[in-house]
Amino acid sequence: MPIKASIIGATGYAGVELVRLLLRHQNVKLSHLGSKSYAGDKLSKIYPMFMDICDITLEEPDLEGFSKDSDVIFVALPNGILNKEINQEILNRSVIIDLGADFRLVNPEKYEEWYKLKHYNKELLKTAVYGLVELKRNKIKNKRLIANPGCYTTTSILSLAPLMKKDYIDLSSIIIDAASGVTGAGRGLKVDNLYCEVDENYKAYGITNHRHTPEIEQELSELAGQEVTINFTPHLVPMERGILITAYINLNKDIKIEQIIKDYKNFYNNEKFIRILDGIDAQTKFVKGSNYLDISLKIDPRTNRLIVLGASDNLMKGAAGQAVQNMNVVFGFNESEGLNMVPDSLI
Amino acid sequence: MPIKASIIGATGYAGVELVRLLLRHQNVKLSHLGSKSYAGDKLSKIYPMFMDICDITLEEPDLEGFSKDSDVIFVALPNGILNKEINQEILNRSVIIDLGADFRLVNPEKYEEWYKLKHYNKELLKTAVYGLVELKRNKIKNKRLIANPGCYTTTSILSLAPLMKKDYIDLSSIIIDAASGVTGAGRGLKVDNLYCEVDENYKAYGITNHRHTPEIEQELSELAGQEVTINFTPHLVPMERGILITAYINLNKDIKIEQIIKDYKNFYNNEKFIRILDGIDAQTKFVKGSNYLDISLKIDPRTNRLIVLGASDNLMKGAAGQAVQNMNVVFGFNESEGLNMVPDSLI
Amino acid sequence: MPIKASIIGATGYAGVELVRLLLRHQNVKLSHLGSKSYAGDKLSKIYPMFMDICDITLEEPDLEGFSKDSDVIFVALPNGILNKEINQEILNRSVIIDLGADFRLVNPEKYEEWYKLKHYNKELLKTAVYGLVELKRNKIKNKRLIANPGCYTTTSILSLAPLMKKDYIDLSSIIIDAASGVTGAGRGLKVDNLYCEVDENYKAYGITNHRHTPEIEQELSELAGQEVTINFTPHLVPMERGILITAYINLNKDIKIEQIIKDYKNFYNNEKFIRILDGIDAQTKFVKGSNYLDISLKIDPRTNRLIVLGASDNLMKGAAGQAVQNMNVVFGFNESEGLNMVPDSLI
Amino acid sequence: MPIKASIIGATGYAGVELVRLLLRHQNVKLSHLGSKSYAGDKLSKIYPMFMDICDITLEEPDLEGFSKDSDVIFVALPNGILNKEINQEILNRSVIIDLGADFRLVNPEKYEEWYKLKHYNKELLKTAVYGLVELKRNKIKNKRLIANPGCYTTTSILSLAPLMKKDYIDLSSIIIDAASGVTGAGRGLKVDNLYCEVDENYKAYGITNHRHTPEIEQELSELAGQEVTINFTPHLVPMERGILITAYINLNKDIKIEQIIKDYKNFYNNEKFIRILDGIDAQTKFVKGSNYLDISLKIDPRTNRLIVLGASDNLMKGAAGQAVQNMNVVFGFNESEGLNMVPDSLI
Repeated sequence: MPIKASIIGATGYAGVELVRLLLRHQNVKLSHLGSKSYAGDKLSKIYPMFMDICDITLEEPDLEGFSKDSDVIFVALPNGILNKEINQEILNRSVIIDLGADFRLVNPEKYEEWYKLKHYNKELLKTAVYGLVELKRNKIKNKRLIANPGCYTTTSILSLAPLMKKDYIDLSSIIIDAASGVTGAGRGLKVDNLYCEVDENYKAYGITNHRHTPEIEQELSELAGQEVTINFTPHLVPMERGILITAYINLNKDIKIEQIIKDYKNFYNNEKFIRILDGIDAQTKFVKGSNYLDISLKIDPRTNRLIVLGASDNLMKGAAGQAVQNMNVVFGFNESEGLNMVPDSLI
Repeated sequence: MPIKASIIGATGYAGVELVRLLLRHQNVKLSHLGSKSYAGDKLSKIYPMFMDICDITLEEPDLEGFSKDSDVIFVALPNGILNKEINQEILNRSVIIDLGADFRLVNPEKYEEWYKLKHYNKELLKTAVYGLVELKRNKIKNKRLIANPGCYTTTSILSLAPLMKKDYIDLSSIIIDAASGVTGAGRGLKVDNLYCEVDENYKAYGITNHRHTPEIEQELSELAGQEVTINFTPHLVPMERGILITAYINLNKDIKIEQIIKDYKNFYNNEKFIRILDGIDAQTKFVKGSNYLDISLKIDPRTNRLIVLGASDNLMKGAAGQAVQNMNVVFGFNESEGLNMVPDSLI
Repeated sequence: MPIKASIIGATGYAGVELVRLLLRHQNVKLSHLGSKSYAGDKLSKIYPMFMDICDITLEEPDLEGFSKDSDVIFVALPNGILNKEINQEILNRSVIIDLGADFRLVNPEKYEEWYKLKHYNKELLKTAVYGLVELKRNKIKNKRLIANPGCYTTTSILSLAPLMKKDYIDLSSIIIDAASGVTGAGRGLKVDNLYCEVDENYKAYGITNHRHTPEIEQELSELAGQEVTINFTPHLVPMERGILITAYINLNKDIKIEQIIKDYKNFYNNEKFIRILDGIDAQTKFVKGSNYLDISLKIDPRTNRLIVLGASDNLMKGAAGQAVQNMNVVFGFNESEGLNMVPDSLI
Repeated sequence: MPIKASIIGATGYAGVELVRLLLRHQNVKLSHLGSKSYAGDKLSKIYPMFMDICDITLEEPDLEGFSKDSDVIFVALPNGILNKEINQEILNRSVIIDLGADFRLVNPEKYEEWYKLKHYNKELLKTAVYGLVELKRNKIKNKRLIANPGCYTTTSILSLAPLMKKDYIDLSSIIIDAASGVTGAGRGLKVDNLYCEVDENYKAYGITNHRHTPEIEQELSELAGQEVTINFTPHLVPMERGILITAYINLNKDIKIEQIIKDYKNFYNNEKFIRILDGIDAQTKFVKGSNYLDISLKIDPRTNRLIVLGASDNLMKGAAGQAVQNMNVVFGFNESEGLNMVPDSLI
């Protein structure tokens, strides 16, 4: 007997990807789809690809109301709203998986500093878990409030995690150069998101101040057991999906790449969604449309720097796929249920 | 207990799409993957997205040999090869689903005229069926040799079929203007297929002589019960997947669009993969990555012409998806098994 | 001594293309750049590519004011505004080249029917000329109000003009299937213009009611000396620039393609910007970034239909380039001054 | 009276861009166009956009022969050929501007190490100059053999040059993360260059061993007066033109970004093709189709690292445009003759 799932913010790119995933999930029945912009319309009117597949009518988002007949609610709202609306009663009724940033940073001061927003729910923040399954599976199991990580963050943290306890890297030297497809920018009406502005262009943005930075640092620091400060520079690529990070780390002793690859394989031993590539470099097409995160490694002997490539699909492992993975963990479903897609394909 | 399926031409775009579909099909186990160019390599070396998903090593294509332990063989070869290699013994062992053109045209003279190739197997040609399920489901059921239709053809025929018996259209006036994504051109090494030649360009090709023309005419004529001759002009669009046809037909009496839409809905009553759009125009994104074929209709009252839009994914309903649908029919599986993807998504 | 030119609507895609052209024009000095959205900002702030090249500050659009020190004003405004603001005094001071539709349709009822806007200046409408230089060069020379044709229109009319007086075509059979790059949709903030909506998609729009239809019919009818009614169906292609039309016309007698090509070459004898291709099909890349319009022709002997391909750059021959060509004619400059670009290149 | 210019390798992407530039250059007349693949064909047959613009027939490449009636020969050949064919007699007759790598590395051992090719002309290598005009204008003036820099190299060197003598940076910390459009990969027939492989994908390549690395190090070292070793990682972006580098350098003292911007502006004082952006980040669209190189700078106060963005068009400042600029310097023409394009435009 399936659980009842609702989505708030169902018509954004991450929200609609969630609908697609949940529609094909064996253990889930869709309950409510909330959309501020399109309440009252059928989803299939806004996204005709759902015609004959999903007949649901979009509703005014109503966390309180939805929670009354939802076992889980996925929330994809602008930052700063959920931490105002949520309360313990809601959590008692429904597991909340938040695709936004309100409960990702354990330190609310950091949240207020980087998001320029007041945090209204420091109490519940303490009960939240950062939903990076490969690192916190057991912590996630019995939680009611899951902070689903950001797309750049997921790719950056998982690509570097196995190094954090290693004595052969210089923790102060981490530079993450990242690039993302345009769905990462969302469906908002900005000139910058118009086809003719994005097409045939490559640019950096959010240099030195992108909001995913403190999130990456928080998790890497926890893994390292000390403060880690990084450089993070995102770029926009004229494509729809995919994130690739290219990370540079100084090695402070002689070590063979084979050893580092071995360390990665040990760290991610049996993780279904992490692939350590051997003899080939990660690229976004290899993971497109799947929940996989691919990692490849190289040492530049001339500078003794380690170069780590990490690739994922920003809408899947970087958003909706990871949210479903979190749900699977919380409700004890097969962790890859609904997520067994072959990359760059359509099944 | 699943059937054993093999593919000849597994590393072309249609072949690899087939692999993806069959890997997730409940009733199928992959047996052999044949690839002339990459025999001896693992599929996951040529297409790293298959890493950890499909471990099969590509083999030298061997129809005879594969047939010994395959219930079905999907053949994606250059035209002119299969009709030389195939024989009754092979068909006794394996159902052959041909994604090429060797057995599509019932009249071998037409084949030799349009393909400039001799046809070596007119006997077996008589035993083949044109695998357009929505039109020939019952004929397909008990056949061993299925000619899987071309991408432009599938979209054109299914978009016009409901009109062929209607007295309100002028059969001599049919013009089909079509456009396709680049996977339709295959993975061959031609300057014309290079990124910088295709990108930011729109062009027509095969004007007046595209090989899908006689195939469309054959099926429309059969439906009409008389010779139908058409204009067909394909175009190349800088995108990976998708076909849209825009067809123009003169109406020879006054008729309301509502009536025509009703005729289409009656004709395709309950067809799972055909969607008759109402109040919205078909576009390729609405079917991308799915086995759906969308049809929308409009009348231009100023010229009393009917305009039919038909959209499908050239690799799915136009190739691999339809091949799987044919297999499902022949082997009595649920017709949509392995084909329930939500369009423009990745599950 | 150069003339003074101003632009109203300088920050739209056509407007900014005009700025680029005029900046490199030997006989022109830019006077005022009007932009409702960005008045007060430097052009180079809105379009940083102009840094160190054009230092002009954008002004509130002011037709009256600009006309006081402008020999010519290019107007790229939403339809319905210019016909309210313009008057004879302005025209006495400045030649107006309108990139909008207010003065294209000689019959104001047609304008009000297709644009659903009242026309406020039927008097001046009588003094306007339809600025299709290749067809009306001499009429344009001494005019003060030039209606610069639309992009689809320019391509359609010039590609079919040589046929209009020929007895071998059936005027009632003309079907124009067209496709355009996304700059044609302008820079407006619509979800439909977002990168992720346009990319990897091909769609038709404005079926049976696109506003360029009556404009095409008006000019073809004038050429034919009788009412011509057509089908016109535009499509959107995921690319920035370029228009290709594929036109279908019934031939009502036997004629050789060589004869038709000859007729085209005679009709456009010595026209610098019209190229009649021989043995190769027109495509948008061949004219991209230039003021050329390429035409190629084929007969389908099976249906005795003529297929005409016409390609142009919607921002050049379809908008800004043609506007400059009109200016060159009116002011007696070399007609190709500022327009001698090599297609698909950047000089 | 114009000089006579010839091109060897005229049908590659850089070669054809050169043709476009030289066709519009006031002081140049095209003499010979050499193309191994298409000798005997008219250029306008291979690139129809040249129809009615350039009537030249492609010839078998013949350095010796071309030199007899060419004042300058641009050579765009695979590495390893020119250093075999060239000799002093040829140089006495024609200035050679080499777009390949044969004469870029002053140390032939480096050439043989990185290119795995023997260098056959160490004598003439001594007479060559590295043609980066902004750094070596006076050295270039009286040279006959110009090594035109690579695209990644030009962008990297010019973006970092002003820092090399500064005491506030750590020369051992330079990391250059770069991305390029697909024309950079040339027009060769490789599966990797097919539309469907490049489109909707972002990948790194040549990690730790890209051949532009020693070229960048050679010039930065010369500027610094000491050995500089860098990390260089190129990426492929699904677009046609453009390069953006994102460079990371540790600052070893407190310094204000305003000071660094001032240092850059002083260093490039009055350089027409270098733009130091202020308050806006460099992106490829801002320089597309022009000879400009844009540079922007930011300090990350949290890590005290300097982030330098440099953008150029790989076919212009990165290849053909720079080659023309070198020619202008050698022959004493106005340095920007033929290069005054407005970026992202087509004049």
